[in-house]
Amino acid sequence: MNGNLDFDHYFSRMDTRLADMWGNIMRTSPMASCVLQGKTTRELYAIYLVETYHYTSHNARNQALVATRPDVRNPIYAKFCMTHASDEYGDEQMALHDLGSLGFSKEASSIPAALPETEALIGYLYWISMTGNPLRRLGYSYWAESCYGYIAPLLQKIKTTLNLAPAQMTFFLAHSEIDQAHFEEVKSAIRRNCKQEADLLDIEQVMEQSLVLTARVMDAALSAHQEFGRKPTRRYDFLTPQIQSM
Amino acid sequence: MNGNLDFDHYFSRMDTRLADMWGNIMRTSPMASCVLQGKTTRELYAIYLVETYHYTSHNARNQALVATRPDVRNPIYAKFCMTHASDEYGDEQMALHDLGSLGFSKEASSIPAALPETEALIGYLYWISMTGNPLRRLGYSYWAESCYGYIAPLLQKIKTTLNLAPAQMTFFLAHSEIDQAHFEEVKSAIRRNCKQEADLLDIEQVMEQSLVLTARVMDAALSAHQEFGRKPTRRYDFLTPQIQSM
Amino acid sequence: MNGNLDFDHYFSRMDTRLADMWGNIMRTSPMASCVLQGKTTRELYAIYLVETYHYTSHNARNQALVATRPDVRNPIYAKFCMTHASDEYGDEQMALHDLGSLGFSKEASSIPAALPETEALIGYLYWISMTGNPLRRLGYSYWAESCYGYIAPLLQKIKTTLNLAPAQMTFFLAHSEIDQAHFEEVKSAIRRNCKQEADLLDIEQVMEQSLVLTARVMDAALSAHQEFGRKPTRRYDFLTPQIQSM
Amino acid sequence: MNGNLDFDHYFSRMDTRLADMWGNIMRTSPMASCVLQGKTTRELYAIYLVETYHYTSHNARNQALVATRPDVRNPIYAKFCMTHASDEYGDEQMALHDLGSLGFSKEASSIPAALPETEALIGYLYWISMTGNPLRRLGYSYWAESCYGYIAPLLQKIKTTLNLAPAQMTFFLAHSEIDQAHFEEVKSAIRRNCKQEADLLDIEQVMEQSLVLTARVMDAALSAHQEFGRKPTRRYDFLTPQIQSM
Repeated sequence: MNGNLDFDHYFSRMDTRLADMWGNIMRTSPMASCVLQGKTTRELYAIYLVETYHYTSHNARNQALVATRPDVRNPIYAKFCMTHASDEYGDEQMALHDLGSLGFSKEASSIPAALPETEALIGYLYWISMTGNPLRRLGYSYWAESCYGYIAPLLQKIKTTLNLAPAQMTFFLAHSEIDQAHFEEVKSAIRRNCKQEADLLDIEQVMEQSLVLTARVMDAALSAHQEFGRKPTRRYDFLTPQIQSM
Repeated sequence: MNGNLDFDHYFSRMDTRLADMWGNIMRTSPMASCVLQGKTTRELYAIYLVETYHYTSHNARNQALVATRPDVRNPIYAKFCMTHASDEYGDEQMALHDLGSLGFSKEASSIPAALPETEALIGYLYWISMTGNPLRRLGYSYWAESCYGYIAPLLQKIKTTLNLAPAQMTFFLAHSEIDQAHFEEVKSAIRRNCKQEADLLDIEQVMEQSLVLTARVMDAALSAHQEFGRKPTRRYDFLTPQIQSM
Repeated sequence: MNGNLDFDHYFSRMDTRLADMWGNIMRTSPMASCVLQGKTTRELYAIYLVETYHYTSHNARNQALVATRPDVRNPIYAKFCMTHASDEYGDEQMALHDLGSLGFSKEASSIPAALPETEALIGYLYWISMTGNPLRRLGYSYWAESCYGYIAPLLQKIKTTLNLAPAQMTFFLAHSEIDQAHFEEVKSAIRRNCKQEADLLDIEQVMEQSLVLTARVMDAALSAHQEFGRKPTRRYDFLTPQIQSM
Repeated sequence: MNGNLDFDHYFSRMDTRLADMWGNIMRTSPMASCVLQGKTTRELYAIYLVETYHYTSHNARNQALVATRPDVRNPIYAKFCMTHASDEYGDEQMALHDLGSLGFSKEASSIPAALPETEALIGYLYWISMTGNPLRRLGYSYWAESCYGYIAPLLQKIKTTLNLAPAQMTFFLAHSEIDQAHFEEVKSAIRRNCKQEADLLDIEQVMEQSLVLTARVMDAALSAHQEFGRKPTRRYDFLTPQIQSM
């Protein structure tokens, strides 16, 4: 029984923590500052879309992986992981589409490999999906499905800075609509499956760490863009035609 | 394009092959002979239900695993694997239920570990799910979802020999109804996803080998039952109360 | 403490069981009969070398995998698995070499994929290496490192039938020398690491099942050869130049 | 051929990069500052030993895992990974020993789970071991086997601040001796196995990212210690007896 868990209080604490963390990101992340100051370039947005493509392409996989674990015996949670993963499978294609609608190559084969910070996020998500408390992956979903309120100012600023049409922001726009329902499902999954305080703490830890690692991906995209500006490398060849045509 | 693949002819060839293989099993399998001669005991049925429980408990897992592979990029097939796995997740509980309705323990913790032949089947299904052509796991689904016509005589004979009520055969009865639709979905998945002759051959090979290994599980259950008759071991302690009460 | 385990008696029982199983293989295996009747062809030997190449190329991998399991905490056993795997890594190259010395292609890229029966063996060995009692993989090593006495008549007959030079049998000859020491190491590993009767039984089960699956690989090679004789397929293209030159 | 790779120049660049990164850690890491200012407590050292225990217990495993990959076909590199892993297997026991010699519990079962930052490091190391260029795990070994010059001031300061005997620092002292030879082996492995510039870049990226993640583990240990000081939780129960006895 989980009658002794106060989920309303827990969600409130989680939301407060998220508000703090996002506030901190907005104040201290070089990438957030760059965006909010209207300094986003099409190349920077493209570089971030590439990293988004990479980690998103693993999200459905690592979520489904939870359901394949021999120690997961709870059909409610396993089915949640499988059907949720099925819903999100292929979402990374929207990031490729947006790259293409910006005029860059949208071929998965032509974009660069994930930055090390992105691999750190990806590796962490597989690790917490494959080991430890299987419920804890819900911590990633918790913030990922509820982030659009927090990142709306960034998206709005990117939109105006680059004068983007909706068809050039499908990944972020589509997610902000879909994920409202998903967020309710995540909270429902927490209510139905968590039986003890330790489950809630494990989910909270993954929420925090996966958001920290995601913020580092944002800043790594900015660093990569700055390095590219100083010394173009073959890594970002796919950006070059765009630069020449400007 | 897969316009050059003649799926109708392929399914016809697969069905002919299955009819041959099942005919061979009916003629040569010691377990099939035992059942058809009306020699099934409750203990033998229970031992087979235990093995059924074991391999079934992995089927959803290894099917979902296909969708987590980095080399699976086809969303139609990946989503098929995830949702199909979600549908079948937990089906092994019916085998436990049937054990319980026979008067045996239905606790997963009290039943014996899988027989080596069952582990051979399980290991093979994980192997072909994790490596090689990702489509080939459809070969297992192909025969598993269409087997009820072939095994109906066995089930009918078990039913009359042991005078079983439907509630004591939920696993096999439920599957025979559900799986009609599933079989059509499997054929549809083959039509939609196979692009070359090699895909069809890979699926055919897995169909044959996984059926061969399953037939060996049947015969291993009979051998285990005979050995138990000669010299009861702690392995089948869960059968003892039933024996005493008879 | 394992003071209560009688290892001498256990090894004696294992050896008796192996003698029985090998005797049975020699009497009933179509491949063994074919070889002992002097009917081996170069193509049949080549087909078996291909399967040997396939399963051997996984042996070091699945043995090392045992040592990577989070539930393996015993450094003596883990180090045994790692160093033993290191010793055997690459042994499959000898099978390729022998193929080459027979005049067939020795390129890994030109030989056919493993037969389904070989995949059943490979999949089983990964499965028992990754799950269940980690010690049980010693059951495969137990018979594999002690098989040369049993298969010597087969090897001798192949040698005379095909008039092979030692350089055309390096895989089997090299193993018969190396493996004497390895067998002692396997027995020593069993003595040092097994603590309870269940460990011994788990090892025994894997010994039996992996030998059964290996015997099926032998017979599958014969079946493949017969099918090739009836209707050559592209699968065995690498044999064709040899046939034409005879 | 790798005749075109200038390894001496590469190692020089790697060492310069490491000197920069370690210099940056010494200047900016809160943990390094705390240690260098002589503010280390036995509890802080214990908390760091716990995290060291956790990530070290995975190092041999993820290194051996490289050798089990189907895409690793190079026996020189595979054998290096296996034997190196065998050498390091169990090293985490030294961290437990040091905990015990400080008077804390040295039972693996009584110490807390890894901090999220430690799981981020562990997950990353498994990820880069299982995917991408198999050679890139050498980047982790490169800095790990050469770090003792950089961290010597920290270790010396901890020693004097806490008045530790060598038997209370076996993990760090033992590694500083063993790892001189290991570092040469790592460089030799790079020389023997890297064939193209991309190999060197992949190794460099992993070196940088795994050191960044390790520095975050250091700072996370300090944060955990500070939080423990403000509000003791059950997580650090194993520290309590020590506190009471002071």
